[in-house]
Amino acid sequence: MTDQTATTTRAWGTPGFAEPLEPVTIERRALRGDDVRIAIEYAGICHSDIHTIRGDWGDRRYPLVPGHEIVGRVEAVGDKVTKHRVGERVGVGCFVNSCGECEPCRAGEISYCDNGVVTTYGAEDPYADQEYTQGGYSRQIVVREDFVVRVPESLDPAAAAPLLCAGITTYSPLKHWNTGPGKRVAVIGMGGLGHVGVKIAAAMGAEVTVFSHSTRKRDDALRFGATHHVSTADGLPDEWRNYFDLILNTVSVDLDIDAYLQLLRLDGVLVQLGLPGAPLETKTRSFTQKRRSLSGSLVGGIRETQEMLDFCAEHGVTAEIELIDAEGINEAYDRTIAADVRYRFVIDAATL
Amino acid sequence: MTDQTATTTRAWGTPGFAEPLEPVTIERRALRGDDVRIAIEYAGICHSDIHTIRGDWGDRRYPLVPGHEIVGRVEAVGDKVTKHRVGERVGVGCFVNSCGECEPCRAGEISYCDNGVVTTYGAEDPYADQEYTQGGYSRQIVVREDFVVRVPESLDPAAAAPLLCAGITTYSPLKHWNTGPGKRVAVIGMGGLGHVGVKIAAAMGAEVTVFSHSTRKRDDALRFGATHHVSTADGLPDEWRNYFDLILNTVSVDLDIDAYLQLLRLDGVLVQLGLPGAPLETKTRSFTQKRRSLSGSLVGGIRETQEMLDFCAEHGVTAEIELIDAEGINEAYDRTIAADVRYRFVIDAATL
Repeated sequence: MTDQTATTTRAWGTPGFAEPLEPVTIERRALRGDDVRIAIEYAGICHSDIHTIRGDWGDRRYPLVPGHEIVGRVEAVGDKVTKHRVGERVGVGCFVNSCGECEPCRAGEISYCDNGVVTTYGAEDPYADQEYTQGGYSRQIVVREDFVVRVPESLDPAAAAPLLCAGITTYSPLKHWNTGPGKRVAVIGMGGLGHVGVKIAAAMGAEVTVFSHSTRKRDDALRFGATHHVSTADGLPDEWRNYFDLILNTVSVDLDIDAYLQLLRLDGVLVQLGLPGAPLETKTRSFTQKRRSLSGSLVGGIRETQEMLDFCAEHGVTAEIELIDAEGINEAYDRTIAADVRYRFVIDAATL
Repeated sequence: MTDQTATTTRAWGTPGFAEPLEPVTIERRALRGDDVRIAIEYAGICHSDIHTIRGDWGDRRYPLVPGHEIVGRVEAVGDKVTKHRVGERVGVGCFVNSCGECEPCRAGEISYCDNGVVTTYGAEDPYADQEYTQGGYSRQIVVREDFVVRVPESLDPAAAAPLLCAGITTYSPLKHWNTGPGKRVAVIGMGGLGHVGVKIAAAMGAEVTVFSHSTRKRDDALRFGATHHVSTADGLPDEWRNYFDLILNTVSVDLDIDAYLQLLRLDGVLVQLGLPGAPLETKTRSFTQKRRSLSGSLVGGIRETQEMLDFCAEHGVTAEIELIDAEGINEAYDRTIAADVRYRFVIDAATL
């Protein structure tokens, strides 16, 4: 039977605009029929958490608890839940609701919901009484079963947490643009997102090349499955022109996108995953010469997230992580901004 | 047996940089084994002829004879020719040679030849002793059989001439991006290129919408098969957001491409066919929101050009033309620049 009472849970959040994170107590709703309550084990720290908390993306309501790379175990289910059961290891990613009725939603592409997908934290949910969402830096979360995925037991749960954002954000475009044996994939930037992209693309059988501003991560790139590592310290070497089928741009700094377009062969696609601030400047000829495309991809759907986790379990792919206690979150934010992490911080939720 | 002598032929060309066209005499090479000599009946006037002749795209060698929308009849063939026979009605489009060895060429995508496709006029052919190519405003042309297509007898030959450039340039992206019933296609600009694009997209079964800066051509658009005509005099109406699967931009003036990207639904593609001068400015979010793409397309392959002509014959599609004598070419150039033509000038080659 459905649990009729709301619960309170310990969490770490920010009490106000651009303030450091600190312990807070938040409420989780009483289970509705299709809700799952999860005892959180691990929560990854995504760069977008930092942007949100430090005010780069504008003001929100407070307190605000970030976190959308969530792994835990089901501890209670609503009386209409059919997809999950108590004790199962599950995950929650970037989204916790969508309209369910528009064309993208009906196609399972909830990221692209015409009426607005609901992010896991910092959003008012128009499909659930404007409830304000609070994220995964907490001990417990309540989520509609349709937005919960199974995490295979064979995956290390802490190292699997970043797959819920970094994993699906790279898997989705790799899959959409038919990555596989014989395909040449480039990944620009090898941070939290990029390093998982390299592993997944290599596991899919593609030849992977990493473009990085230095050579510091060369050995890691090769260890993750890349065949080539190209330092862009002196610009883009000409030998890579017309070479790639797919380029994933995982960095959010402003790059010369037109120069990277030149690296695509016939029908190649450059996909933006980061969100740089400046407009992208490109030349028409860069597109017409080889029927190249510039595109973008936003996270991925729930069915596809499940497919990604099953793929990662099959191929032994997880993120490289540094496990931290709650007390270390603010420092971890500073280190993430300084690119001083290999490659993702994950919070042990027992310490929250 | 192969015709061993070069021929001279009457033509109209420019004697020097940015000078008006006038009668000239040019030489056509003696037939090689795989050459076809064509008695030209009609030659279309493409906007790119005007750019080239009036010096917009830099200096060339002179005299220079433009024209790459060529229809005529085979009057002689080399002794190794197997694809064409004397008397057959044929066409030649934008290209007369390519390396034949690179990946795009092997895939039939000669437009995108890695080593440089050879344009029908104004180019030195690196695959044929650096011969300088001269175009279709002439009585005769000699072309390798692989670059000659059959023009179905059921098509009006004068009105079919523009299909060799405008037809294939719109057919190729429509086909590549799977235009058909249930698909929503927009065509920006309804000039020489756009009006053929509207006809072909409609013949493929798509719902077609024309975006035009005025309402002057509304009736024509509907007659060509469009369902909607949108005037952009007051900007882009908001009702078309997230609507189209494919947008063909046929205009070469600088548009706000980012605003048009917003009109694409999930996985929609905006294809640049014109070559505007200024860089394209787009926002990353315009791509990531709906996994939209910006792309470009350049003419099309020879096999695909044949497919397009057969499709047009089956569906009764030709260009809307104004047939002129050679004496009218320079005036036709002025009128084309002033957009005072519905919709393509074609030269009666008998008057050259």
